[in-house]
Amino acid sequence: MKLTILGCYSATPRVLTNPTSQVLEIKNHMFLIDCGEGTQVQLRKHKIKFNRIKHIFISHLHGDHFFGLAGLISTFRLLTRETDLNIYGPKGIKEVITLQMKLADSWTNYKLIFHELESDTSELIFEDDDVEVHTIPLKHRVYTNGFLFKEKEGERKLNINAVKANNINIAYYRKLKQGFDVENENGELIKNSLVTSAPEKPKSYAFCSDTAYKEDIVPIIKDVDVLYHESTFLEKHEKLADPTKHSTAKQAASIAKQANAGTLILGHYSTRYDNLNDFKTEAKTIFKQVRLAKDGKVFNFN
Amino acid sequence: MKLTILGCYSATPRVLTNPTSQVLEIKNHMFLIDCGEGTQVQLRKHKIKFNRIKHIFISHLHGDHFFGLAGLISTFRLLTRETDLNIYGPKGIKEVITLQMKLADSWTNYKLIFHELESDTSELIFEDDDVEVHTIPLKHRVYTNGFLFKEKEGERKLNINAVKANNINIAYYRKLKQGFDVENENGELIKNSLVTSAPEKPKSYAFCSDTAYKEDIVPIIKDVDVLYHESTFLEKHEKLADPTKHSTAKQAASIAKQANAGTLILGHYSTRYDNLNDFKTEAKTIFKQVRLAKDGKVFNFN
Repeated sequence: MKLTILGCYSATPRVLTNPTSQVLEIKNHMFLIDCGEGTQVQLRKHKIKFNRIKHIFISHLHGDHFFGLAGLISTFRLLTRETDLNIYGPKGIKEVITLQMKLADSWTNYKLIFHELESDTSELIFEDDDVEVHTIPLKHRVYTNGFLFKEKEGERKLNINAVKANNINIAYYRKLKQGFDVENENGELIKNSLVTSAPEKPKSYAFCSDTAYKEDIVPIIKDVDVLYHESTFLEKHEKLADPTKHSTAKQAASIAKQANAGTLILGHYSTRYDNLNDFKTEAKTIFKQVRLAKDGKVFNFN
Repeated sequence: MKLTILGCYSATPRVLTNPTSQVLEIKNHMFLIDCGEGTQVQLRKHKIKFNRIKHIFISHLHGDHFFGLAGLISTFRLLTRETDLNIYGPKGIKEVITLQMKLADSWTNYKLIFHELESDTSELIFEDDDVEVHTIPLKHRVYTNGFLFKEKEGERKLNINAVKANNINIAYYRKLKQGFDVENENGELIKNSLVTSAPEKPKSYAFCSDTAYKEDIVPIIKDVDVLYHESTFLEKHEKLADPTKHSTAKQAASIAKQANAGTLILGHYSTRYDNLNDFKTEAKTIFKQVRLAKDGKVFNFN
């Protein structure tokens, strides 16, 4: 599991900082999460192949999280993309993207599939053999979802020496991987655990931005391996966090602690702060395993 | 008159090139012309004060000419702008910007005034004591206008020594500047030309992008001082220019020649070309005074 931060600042793009966008590589998927203005240039900078992006998740329709989407869709067309593109985001996202295409008398050569979200409870919005994606209803000034990406439990791994020593026919390998006991060539029942080992523990990533402090999300993200939680403000500006429906570093850490997260990544910093280490210091008073998002930073979680 | 090129490439923003946007400083105005994605960052890079921009002219609703507008409007609000903002652009521009604000549950603290264009003939869309702005109907895949910015003739300049030598009362200075003959303190009629000199020749700038070759625009831009005319292609790719409704460098030069322009600036290059000097060389076979737009380049026309 690998996370590339394309942008992690709040409000507006600036010369050296970008609004929210991330790429999550998980089990051969490359998910784009949020798409602030300039995201397509950040993707180019980080040499992320456009064609590998098949699913884009948009948390909410504030500009710093989605003003780069229309341009990205348009660029995909200019580059003669043919691969389907799925877009998950709040109701309204289809109308606004479609209107922009209509006014430009434009279209896509590829299939553009919108999955509009409007539920206030967590729902499963994507699933295949390898991965599930669930929404995390957040509390912001407009309808907003975070996203929980979960690897599925993989198949058990064959211990090929043990399999052969036990004289098991290759036709049974599939069943072994699925965890079944099987009969060998001599008609003996071989216990699965004798010839296989457990798969790697599936990993999970929760993206929570933008949101006020909201304990309701804890059960949804319980035991998540990596939690990205916004921390627009430091505790000393908590009075700003409340009306703007954002969180402080301390509040983010409290959610991480309650959820028993493995690692907390902070981001969505207000541009008023020069020293990001203050966010880390503050969060660490509550929760130990804290890391700071920075534009261009790559986190490998293996 | 000063022109800053924020972006002059076609199609998509890339790591080192930006889509169309320019700032024209003319007679204390700072006009923003087109607003591709990333324009607000380019404005910051070139230290152009956001508050000085009171009028934005959008040629057409293709993304590479206006996908930066919603973000710029939103950033102006975040920076607590109070100055009115006038936006001139094709019909539909108000709907698409308003929809984006509605979905973000956002608004502006300042007055946002849309001037929607739909005429197929040139019209005066802005005028004050110093400047006029006229549309230049272009020929593109969607409804598109260029813009002609014309300084008005200024007042005549007083030759203060001659004025004093002719014993003219200060109450008449205004009339002198306006070109009238006046009576002096001795009751003698003083010819205006004796005590004043002609104002500086008013300057003009025509922005023509995007467009196929269109001779109809020549009378509108006749004798313009500076003409920016798109040259997406070189002549060797003329077959691409026709269906996409773009121009070649040679065609741009032909328009400049017929219009008797002072200087031709080329831009809106297709990203297929590595050597921009080929555009200049080609245009110079038709018209001598050719310059190349480049992102970040500043042209001073004094």
